[in-house]
Amino acid sequence: MPSTDRIRDHAGQGATTVAARARRRLRADQARQLADLLRHQILSGGFDSGTLPHESVLATDYRASRNTVRQALDLLRAEGLVARHPGVGTVVVGQKYPHGLDRLMGLAETLHEHGTVTNEVRTMGPAPAPHPVAQRLKVAPGTDVLYIERLRRLNGLPLSLDLTYIPLDIGTALLGADLENTDVFRLLETITGQGLGHAEITLEAVNADAHSAAVLEAPRGAAVLMLERLTHLADGRPVDLEFIRFRGDRITMSGQLRRSL
Amino acid sequence: MPSTDRIRDHAGQGATTVAARARRRLRADQARQLADLLRHQILSGGFDSGTLPHESVLATDYRASRNTVRQALDLLRAEGLVARHPGVGTVVVGQKYPHGLDRLMGLAETLHEHGTVTNEVRTMGPAPAPHPVAQRLKVAPGTDVLYIERLRRLNGLPLSLDLTYIPLDIGTALLGADLENTDVFRLLETITGQGLGHAEITLEAVNADAHSAAVLEAPRGAAVLMLERLTHLADGRPVDLEFIRFRGDRITMSGQLRRSL
Repeated sequence: MPSTDRIRDHAGQGATTVAARARRRLRADQARQLADLLRHQILSGGFDSGTLPHESVLATDYRASRNTVRQALDLLRAEGLVARHPGVGTVVVGQKYPHGLDRLMGLAETLHEHGTVTNEVRTMGPAPAPHPVAQRLKVAPGTDVLYIERLRRLNGLPLSLDLTYIPLDIGTALLGADLENTDVFRLLETITGQGLGHAEITLEAVNADAHSAAVLEAPRGAAVLMLERLTHLADGRPVDLEFIRFRGDRITMSGQLRRSL
Repeated sequence: MPSTDRIRDHAGQGATTVAARARRRLRADQARQLADLLRHQILSGGFDSGTLPHESVLATDYRASRNTVRQALDLLRAEGLVARHPGVGTVVVGQKYPHGLDRLMGLAETLHEHGTVTNEVRTMGPAPAPHPVAQRLKVAPGTDVLYIERLRRLNGLPLSLDLTYIPLDIGTALLGADLENTDVFRLLETITGQGLGHAEITLEAVNADAHSAAVLEAPRGAAVLMLERLTHLADGRPVDLEFIRFRGDRITMSGQLRRSL
């Protein structure tokens, strides 16, 4: 029941044009609606075989027209989730991996069921803390902190680009550590001899700039899930400020929220 | 300390080219690093006046070259966060609003400090539940559920496009409710006489398709923060399945994670 009544007949425009516009809008709305349902099925492994049912089956199952089904599949193809293979049909190509949002976890930790995380350390070394970094890590502005830049891969595929700031008294011990194969979280717990406590996080969706896109091997302008995270040790001390760009087509973040705290 | 050692001198390529490439890469990395720090300052209201300090001041404050500062500001301009006004300098133009991630909240509820949320109901009516919707709402497949599509605005600016499915026994009471000015969450609590319990959520970053972008008045391909949320009543019954597209340039989601549960 679309609100086609919102589409008015303007002077100089025939009723046919208006009706055509209303039909296009209705189909686009229905295609989005169907695409969202199919996306959920794809991400939750609802198409075990890796192949989606034929368009006519989807049309029946979802009570949609063939045109709407085609348009919905076009949307998912544009997102890189499915591809059309001649003679085979529509197949699932883009796997997204679920990053837990309920507990503070490192990448290798949260994705351990899905494969091996490796880290390419692009930059690492002490650098004077800019004012906002110093403030958040509670060190004096201009004090050296350890700066690390890592490209993180799951089973070889680029997943995220992480920029990390760590106070130097703790950071120094990281310089000789196996950062290629170990989460910083785990190393921080080993170095400090205490668990991590909590983290303040902020999530955003941004379009990748050309350089970040190139590093992540994603198209320019690709949607990126950006996570800013300030992690504290169990004793409350802030130890790890990160700016993480996840490839939007490879990561989802899932968790549970409660109405009352 | 960039790992320029990774950049090799290929046959047929002069050392100058390689050095130039290394410099470009270093500057792009540094620009991203600076842009992330400035983004945080902008989003947390660190530039009260609404104007960023002069490039030369930023260069000194962040120990960066003028070129790096310019490139970082270019990145933030491309994101729509700042604009350059001749004679004034770089001003903050894009305000992002923080959606709470610690508690299950409706949009008007979470943004009440920032202004008034209004909802344009684009579509509303009963429709047979497709299989995955029926399954999640625990109704028989093909049973009618209430489908609602709303464009949600904060102080008149488009913020999100929400697709909502609600079991019809509860949904019927929504048909006469003031959906234009009230969160569905609040209405559900009034109708059922009980509070909401918990919700399973999944967050993704996707590029907006042409039609969704047009509805949200965003550029085609704009990064969208996509939230899928299944909300349950306090007694555990699932009552509200939503697919929400937030404009990436207008919403952030913030919360706290703990290491141990």
